[in-house]
Formats: sequence, structure tokens, C-alpha cells
Amino acid sequence: MLKVGIIGVGTVGTSVAEILRDNADVISARAGVDIVVKSGVVKNLNKDRGLDISITDNVDDILNDDEIDIVVELMGGVEEAFEVVKRALGAGKAVVTANKALLAYHRYELQDIAKDIAFEYEAAVAGGIPIITALRDGLSANHIESIMGIMNGTCNYMMTEMTNNGVSYDAILKESQELGYAEADPTFDVGGFDAAHKLLILASIAYGIDAKPEDILIEGIDNVRSEDIAFAKEFGYAIKLLGIAKKDGNEVELRVHAALISQDEMIAKIDGVMNGISVVGDKVGETLYYGAGAGGDATASAVVANIIDIARSGKSTPMLGFDKPMEGSQLVLKPTANIESKYYLRINVSDKTGVLARITKIFEEHNISVETMLQRKSTDTSANLLISTHIAKESDIQSMIDEIEGLEFVNARPVMIRIV
Amino acid sequence: MLKVGIIGVGTVGTSVAEILRDNADVISARAGVDIVVKSGVVKNLNKDRGLDISITDNVDDILNDDEIDIVVELMGGVEEAFEVVKRALGAGKAVVTANKALLAYHRYELQDIAKDIAFEYEAAVAGGIPIITALRDGLSANHIESIMGIMNGTCNYMMTEMTNNGVSYDAILKESQELGYAEADPTFDVGGFDAAHKLLILASIAYGIDAKPEDILIEGIDNVRSEDIAFAKEFGYAIKLLGIAKKDGNEVELRVHAALISQDEMIAKIDGVMNGISVVGDKVGETLYYGAGAGGDATASAVVANIIDIARSGKSTPMLGFDKPMEGSQLVLKPTANIESKYYLRINVSDKTGVLARITKIFEEHNISVETMLQRKSTDTSANLLISTHIAKESDIQSMIDEIEGLEFVNARPVMIRIV
Ligand SMILES: NC(=O)c1ccc[n+]([C@@H]2O[C@H](COP(=O)([O-])OP(=O)(O)OC[C@H]3O[C@@H](n4cnc5c(N)ncnc54)[C@H](OP(=O)(O)O)[C@@H]3O)[C@@H](O)[C@H]2O)c1
Ligand SMILES: NC(=O)c1ccc[n+]([C@@H]2O[C@H](COP(=O)([O-])OP(=O)(O)OC[C@H]3O[C@@H](n4cnc5c(N)ncnc54)[C@H](OP(=O)(O)O)[C@@H]3O)[C@@H](O)[C@H]2O)c1
Repeated sequence: MLKVGIIGVGTVGTSVAEILRDNADVISARAGVDIVVKSGVVKNLNKDRGLDISITDNVDDILNDDEIDIVVELMGGVEEAFEVVKRALGAGKAVVTANKALLAYHRYELQDIAKDIAFEYEAAVAGGIPIITALRDGLSANHIESIMGIMNGTCNYMMTEMTNNGVSYDAILKESQELGYAEADPTFDVGGFDAAHKLLILASIAYGIDAKPEDILIEGIDNVRSEDIAFAKEFGYAIKLLGIAKKDGNEVELRVHAALISQDEMIAKIDGVMNGISVVGDKVGETLYYGAGAGGDATASAVVANIIDIARSGKSTPMLGFDKPMEGSQLVLKPTANIESKYYLRINVSDKTGVLARITKIFEEHNISVETMLQRKSTDTSANLLISTHIAKESDIQSMIDEIEGLEFVNARPVMIRIV
Repeated sequence: MLKVGIIGVGTVGTSVAEILRDNADVISARAGVDIVVKSGVVKNLNKDRGLDISITDNVDDILNDDEIDIVVELMGGVEEAFEVVKRALGAGKAVVTANKALLAYHRYELQDIAKDIAFEYEAAVAGGIPIITALRDGLSANHIESIMGIMNGTCNYMMTEMTNNGVSYDAILKESQELGYAEADPTFDVGGFDAAHKLLILASIAYGIDAKPEDILIEGIDNVRSEDIAFAKEFGYAIKLLGIAKKDGNEVELRVHAALISQDEMIAKIDGVMNGISVVGDKVGETLYYGAGAGGDATASAVVANIIDIARSGKSTPMLGFDKPMEGSQLVLKPTANIESKYYLRINVSDKTGVLARITKIFEEHNISVETMLQRKSTDTSANLLISTHIAKESDIQSMIDEIEGLEFVNARPVMIRIV
């Protein structure tokens, strides 16, 4: 029999205990041993968890319990969780976590500390979708060319509703908060930070890249408005918040941002709160993984899968997929300024003669070539210029946007959305 | 260093050797050891394989070579491959195969023989998509409620072309043969047998069900005609060849057939030669896996992933996912006659009065309730009745079709396609 201690018996922790209880028949048949939860740790002892396990508010009760083989960390946060997990590993206990923030900052330290002890985190990326297993074990024969994913269900729900039901950004944000999909402070989701944490984890497995959130381009969906959705639809695109990792020579670009993507791509067909991640390998071509990216049960499904893996074989794969660095071909992070993309711009201008000519000239001066340009009336005295470009360089676009923002007939900083 | 012998250096075997050579940098970093192909076996020694490995035409050269750690079986066929693989396991060598026919017939014997020796087969289902890993390891916490998949790229290509480009069945079959997607004798693909082999493998992992092709319902796409495609489009369906496994109480139904499926389902959006498999777990909900189901490189990507797994950890998971049977809840195969579904029927009738009334009455007598009925002119003197039903029982539908076929005004055996 294998004994589990759960630190953090909240949404996911409660589901983990329930699955280990409700699905014990199939779990013990697959794992070869019975797996039981011995105890859990919470902050507030007064809340009823509806579970038949011993609950305390002291992590020592789990960390110092010699009977416990596996510690499941589901308390969230970064530094406190890091301390707890280090102590668990120090005590020789296997660890399973769903904590993407912890991993976004400390995954390489944790790999070094864990050494031969199993440390698993399937639930940290895209909840119930077994993307870590797929990428780390299933696609291990490939050089990964790119990863492109819908990794945040809240943003995807909002974009889908704006597209299909013509809802405004503000209205759908409010509704998402009421439905519990978005927090009171929605920045972590709509600002792209949650997706960035997940992208960094995948980038380590695919490329061995040790980057932190501060190192990469992170933007959200907070600039997207109905005009942009309408433009996208007209030109055969969907707008999605994407996490993108792309290999280019010995450089890897990592970025999270709203993006226009052709409606023909499988990723563009993923709607509502669902997540989906497309991975292109040099040998396998494109593969795609789809499912629920959040929710107690779906996330706990991945946590329990990791527990079963550990029951079956202890540690079977290097934590971040690499047993040693790639000889002579270690990859490095591409500087954000050098990223290339097509771009879409929305520029709100006063409706005067000469404006178009002036804007066009500035594009030329920055080496940015226009693919399509539409002018749409905004108010009686202003218009939106909706422009898509050919491939251009991030630094050129940014300096052009700065210049355009300063023009006397431009009413607000231009909104830019990348096209993939 | 780990040494591999490849038995069968054809389409997939050649790609395996190429990947181990071309991607050696990333493979050795991920596996922790170098992996090299020592030798290969073929039938025809005169064909140049373009590989720098020793090639023989005698399997003993690999099976009796003590230096070889892993035997990769890529010769195809059932009984001869079974003998070869048994000998390899008997010699203590790990085995990797892509041979779905072998597994459709002998997977449980192989599991018994392999015991603690690794026997892996990721490539046997859906080529490059890591569906075995996902189902066996990633979803192991779930009772699997259903599996529904596009597991044959040839059939999916044909259905897609008929739907999008209005091509006839005969024309697209001919084109598929010219493109090399379909064999001169296409029965194995269009008759559903290839998909059935894959479905049986997945059913073992999901449910522990030991069924053979002879035990389950297998039909193909060879009855599907442009009229059916037109009906499907009109009512919001796509037509796909699906492999379906579904749990119902302690019974599991297994079936392969063409099916009408709502265009809103993710599976319905998978077009062309691509494969996709949707798996519903009781905790994770729906997940879906998409990618190339065939082709040398994509298939070899999965073979090499298995080799890397073995290099990392020997055997880490029970071959068919279960370490022991499920206590008190072993599942059994549902008899085909008891399967329930909605159905679509195309009945070609002579255009006479009284026909509709007569047909309607026969439906009633067989307890089959009609959902929609269309009549479409076929020739000057005949018409097609296109009928969809509510949920009915397979045995009722079959006996009704037998009765209708015998009617004097019915010109051919009615064509039936299930609706999922
Ligand atoms: N929810 C999802 O859909 C989802 C999906 C993927 C990943 N995750 C990740 O899973 C983790 C858990 O998320 P969740 O949604 O389950 O969070 P949650 O519902 O807020 O649960 C957190 C649990 O940890 C306990 N806790 C927090 N700080 C503690 C401390 N210092 N000492 C002891 N217990 C403490 C809380 O106790 P009280 O109950 O007493 O407050 C609560 O039981 C997070 O890392 C999250 O990013 C969640
Ligand atoms: N091709 C795909 O896309 C694909 C996808 C998934 C799974 N698979 C499976 O992978 C396996 C291999 O398929 P494939 O397409 O690579 O087949 P293939 O191109 O026909 O290659 C078969 C190889 O085996 C050799 N061979 C056959 N019988 C032999 C014998 N008795 N002794 C020694 N060598 C023998 C052949 O030798 P010669 O070259 O001298 O004829 C050839 O090299 C099959 O089980 C297939 O179902 C294939």
C-alpha cells in the first residue's frame, strides 16, 4: 500500500482525495498497489472538506510522517510551496504538484534537488490534458520545431464569446467573473501570465531552455476589442491567446500574446473554456492535444496519473525530459526584439486629409510592408485604420508604434495584435 | 550505449534507423545513453536501403546476437512476427513493434510471455500520435467512458474529399490508390479492419477487454455514396469511419463503422489523412489527440520514443496498462445485437403509390421510430428514401433491413449508416 499526504485540500486537493477513493478499483489494478490518502493540510480547520481523511493545519504532520511515501503539493504560491517541496524531497518523499507558478521560477533547482526522487507535475500545464507525458515521453525522438497552445481557458472563453455572440470585452469579462472563470483581479489570466508559466515549463521539456517569466514577451487579451474581432472574421482568422515556443536555428523564441490565427488551423477550432496545444516535431509533424485545462476533477486526474506512475515505477523519466544537456547544440533564448511576425494594427485617427499618406510613409520608413488596409468610421470625427503587415521585426514594429502614438492626429496608442 | 536490431527495414524500419542517426543529439540527451542500430533484417538483400548498418536476411543474426538489447519488429504480418517476437523475448531482449495485426491477435499472450521485459507498441495505434502513452499513463486515474477515433487516414481522406469536393466514392478510391494512400486491394482499409486492430488494442488498455477482430462489429465506408454525404451535410453531420469503444454498466461495446457525427464535435473537424482520437474519462472529461496516423517518419517517431523509454527505465508500465484485473468489476464485451444507436437508412424504391405507407408500417412493427424522412428522385422510375431514426437496437435494425430488402418495390439492400 502506498500512502499519500496532500498539502492544500482546496479545489484540486479535494478532487485528488475523491478520485483516489472513488476510482480505487481501477487505480489499484493499474498501479499494482492500493493508494490511499493518509492526511491533508489546510489553513482553515473549520471548513468541512467532506472527506474521510485526517486534516491538520501543520505541514510538519505530513513532512515528518515516515509512513507517507508521496507528498502532493496543492497549496499554490511560489516561495512557501518551494520550501515545503524541498523539505519533502529532503525527507526522501516523492512529490507531485500542479503548481505552475512554482515551476515557472524554480524548476531547474527542483530538478537538481530531486535527483533520483520522482518529482512530477502533469497537472501544471493544461490541467487534465496529458501534455507533459506526450511531449516528454511520446515525442522524445523529435527535435521540437514549435509549440503553439491555448493554455488559458478563461481567455479562450472570452475570445469565443466575443467572436460567436458579439459580446463586448467589458461585458464578457464581467460575466466571466460572475461565472467564476475569472478572478476579481483578472490580470493573471487576461494579462497572459498564467499561460506564460505553462509555456516556460513546456519550453524546458522541448528545448532545455531555462527562462523565467521576466525574460520573455508576455501580453494578454486586454487590448482586444470588437473591431478587431470583426476584422479577424472578415479575413478568415480567429483571435486566441496563444503561448508560442518556436525554434529558429539555435535560438528559441518564447512568447504569449493574443494572436490572429487562420480559422483552418486545428488550434483555431478550439472554443470555449477548453485548452489545446499543438506541437510540431521534425519527424512526427503536427500533433495536437485537447481537453479541459482547469477544474478540480480534470486537474486532479493528472495529479493522480502522476501518483500512479510513481507507484508503478518510481522515477522513470528525467524531470524536465533531459538526462544531460544536448552536446554541441544547446539552444538559447531569442531576444524579444528579434522576433519576427506578421502584425495587425488598429490606429484611431482624426478623420482628416493627409492622414493615410502620412501613416503609409511611416510604415515605409520603418521597413514595414502593408498587406491590407481598411478604414472604418469610429465616431463622427475619427476613424479606425485596420492594417495587416507582411513579416516584420518586433523592434521595428515597436518603434513605429511609438512614433505613430506621438502624431498629432492619432487619438490613442495604436493597438497591435500579432498574426501567426 | 544501447544496441538496436531492426527486423524489417522497409518504410518504417528505414525511418527508425534514420531518426536514430539524424536526431542522435537530442535522443542521447533525453535517453541518457547513446542508442545505435547495429543491424537490420530484410527479405531482399539486393535492395539498397541507403543506411550505414549491417543488413542480413536471417533473423537469427539479430535474435542470437548477445550485443543487441532491443529488437524492433517492423516486418508486419501475424504468425511469423509472433514467432520472431517470442524468440526475442525468450532471449531477454526488449521488444518494440508497430504491428497492430500482431497485437490484435496475440497481445495477451505477449503480455504473459514478456513479464518483466519491456514490450512496447506506441506506433501500432495512430502512428505518430502518442495515444498509448496518453491513455495508459496520462489518463490512468479515470474509468474510461468512451473512445471514439478516426484511426484510418485513407478512409478519412476519402470521406473528406467526397464531402468537400463532391467526388464520387469510386473516383476517390481510384485516386487514393494512385496516390499510394490505398492498396490495390483496399479492403483492409475501407472495410474497417485496420481501424479494428487499433481499436482492440485501445480497448485492452482502457477496459482490460481481450477481444479479437472476429468478436466485434466491423464495417467499412464501402457503402457510403454521394447521396449520403449530401444528407449528412444538410442535417449538420460529417461522415467518418470511426472506431468506437463505449462502457455501459459492466459491458463494453466495440465497433468500427462509418458514422454520421455532428459537425460541432472536435472529431468531425479532423480532415484529410490525419487521425484523431477522443477519449472521455469519468474525471477528466473529453480529451482529444490529433496527428499523422501513418507514414514512415511519423510512425518511426513513436517507435523511437519507445526505444528511449526503454533506455530510460526498462519497463515502467504494465504492457496493457493493468498490473492485475479489476477486483469485482471485470468488464465484458457487449453482444453486437444489443448495441443501441441512432441510424440513417437509404432505401432505393420504385416510385409507386403506397410505398411510403408500407415502409413506415414496417418501421413501426420493428419498434423503430423515425426522426426525419426525405424522398429524393433517383431515376425516372425510382427514388431514394433517406431516413434517420431515434435510438434503436442493432438486432431490430438488422431484421428490419432484411425484411425491407425482400419487398418487391425495393431495388437493393438498404444502406445503413449509424449516427453517433
Ligand atoms: N483549480 C484549478 O483548476 C487548477 C488547475 C491547474 C492547476 N492548479 C494549481 O493547483 C494548485 C491548487 O489550486 P486550487 O485551485 O486547488 O487552490 P485552492 O482551492 O485555493 O486550494 C488551496 C489549498 O491550500 C491550502 N493552503 C494554502 N496555503 C496554505 C498554507 N500556508 N498552509 C496550509 N495550507 C494552505 C488552502 O487551505 P484553506 O482551504 O484552509 O484555505 C486550500 O485548501 C495551485 O498551484 C494552482 O495553480 C489549479
Ligand atoms: N507504413 C506505415 O505508415 C505504418 C504505420 C503504422 C504501423 N505500421 C506497421 O509497421 C510494420 C511495417 O510496415 P512498413 O510499412 O514499414 O512495411 P514494409 O515497407 O513492407 O516493410 C516490411 C519490411 O520487412 C521485411 N520483411 C518482411 N517479411 C520478412 C521476413 N520474413 N524476413 C525478413 N524480413 C522481412 C521487408 O523486407 P524487404 O524490404 O526485403 O521486402 C521489409 O523490409 C507493419 O506491421 C505495419 O502494420 C506501418
